Amino acid sequence: MKVAVVQMGVREDKFENMSRAAGFVAQAAAKGADIVVLPEMFNCPYQTRNFPVYAEKAGGECWQILADAARDSHVYLVGGSIPERDDEGRVYNTSFVFDRAGDQIARCRKTHMFDIDVPGGQRFKESETLTPGSEITTFDTEFGTMGLLICYDIRFPEMMRVMANRGAKVVFVPAAFNMTTGPAHWELLFRCRAADYQLFTVGAAPARDEKGVYVSYANSIIVSPWGKVLLRLGAGEEIGLYDVSLGEVDRVRTQLPLRNHYKPALYETQAKL
Amino acid sequence: MKVAVVQMGVREDKFENMSRAAGFVAQAAAKGADIVVLPEMFNCPYQTRNFPVYAEKAGGECWQILADAARDSHVYLVGGSIPERDDEGRVYNTSFVFDRAGDQIARCRKTHMFDIDVPGGQRFKESETLTPGSEITTFDTEFGTMGLLICYDIRFPEMMRVMANRGAKVVFVPAAFNMTTGPAHWELLFRCRAADYQLFTVGAAPARDEKGVYVSYANSIIVSPWGKVLLRLGAGEEIGLYDVSLGEVDRVRTQLPLRNHYKPALYETQAKL
Repeated sequence: MKVAVVQMGVREDKFENMSRAAGFVAQAAAKGADIVVLPEMFNCPYQTRNFPVYAEKAGGECWQILADAARDSHVYLVGGSIPERDDEGRVYNTSFVFDRAGDQIARCRKTHMFDIDVPGGQRFKESETLTPGSEITTFDTEFGTMGLLICYDIRFPEMMRVMANRGAKVVFVPAAFNMTTGPAHWELLFRCRAADYQLFTVGAAPARDEKGVYVSYANSIIVSPWGKVLLRLGAGEEIGLYDVSLGEVDRVRTQLPLRNHYKPALYETQAKL
Repeated sequence: MKVAVVQMGVREDKFENMSRAAGFVAQAAAKGADIVVLPEMFNCPYQTRNFPVYAEKAGGECWQILADAARDSHVYLVGGSIPERDDEGRVYNTSFVFDRAGDQIARCRKTHMFDIDVPGGQRFKESETLTPGSEITTFDTEFGTMGLLICYDIRFPEMMRVMANRGAKVVFVPAAFNMTTGPAHWELLFRCRAADYQLFTVGAAPARDEKGVYVSYANSIIVSPWGKVLLRLGAGEEIGLYDVSLGEVDRVRTQLPLRNHYKPALYETQAKL
């Protein structure tokens, strides 16, 4: 299964971003990608005041551009995330997933709001304008079951445990870590989640723009079920392509049978929804 | 709180190991240690056939040497682990903890048996001679609540989540990763657990003996609640001492309030015992 991570820069103009994203999807497909992953908030510079301004409803123009891109290139598309407005006017940080026919097969609204205040470091408060989702998202493809969460959600190990229990062999994470949390924790989290739950993790981040208000760490990444970094991009705009051997999931789980050794009589992670 | 990790070599003779361990405790105390941590199976070369041969009951000679060492040096002692036989003849991989008066304040029997078979790599089957415990161990000290688990137990994130929920600010892990899993996952696991649960992790391993049947990775480690490696030893016999600022636990939890963002309405780790 050839996975393409699109580490694209994010510009001010929403439709310029959409158009460029569609172009990257076509490029990735031309290189043989089966599934293409866009970054978090790839159509909207990452600032809380932008989210309501850029937001559209599901089925809107941006959603349609993604659906068309998947269908036109005949790929699965994990559509990064875009601000989504619901019927009550609430705004979410939402990832839509489309199959090769351009049909939506999953939707994930970011469930944990990134509200952080590191003295001398990063300050951000998503909850100023965003509403959290309440979903643990998996979806089925011709390659098997996949999981999906957004950026800060990866901080909560239970999310990926539940996805693994539901059969996910790959977890996709559109994300935009910053220059405080990125160097400290980005690779660490993707590697350790992969090793703990013995699945592939895929992180797609926006390219770094040092002049931006929020500077993305970039470093898009693919990690194996053994916790090995298979692909890691730098700071610039780039498509990363990696041919993932899904058989490695079962191989690692046989060699180090964590799942057999798990002790639900002693502790257990439970999904409530 | 000055933490000493004793990365000692393990020899054939049980009481030579005990005597050397007591010596290291005294040395660490002389350097100002408040709490001393010994490695996993420090009195018994790490082979399944040795465990029943070296095993003693709680309160036996080895247990008494540890209690005396803690009392004589007036330190808390996390007594690594030793093979323990219960009244029914079952053998456990057990860590006893003593306070400054030499009184036992905790006992942790390794709960996950390390049964692994990596082709071309490590093969080991603890369950051939050991019985698993069924405990999630925390204990109280003058510095606050501490957690304790043994080696392979660290692979199961739920264990440390429960300890964090019970107030643990430091989790001690007597351990003996090998030359397959050590380079791949040792630092990764200690760093990521610390960052996820925002507490200190302390790993104490036996020194490396290249001629041993089971070669310990060593690399004893102390990691901060931000996931930063504070101390990391090499392969040889050595005492590592680090003055841990427990205030950092609250500081990190304030800056990155993962605990406030946790969503028990959506998922939850539950302790069953």
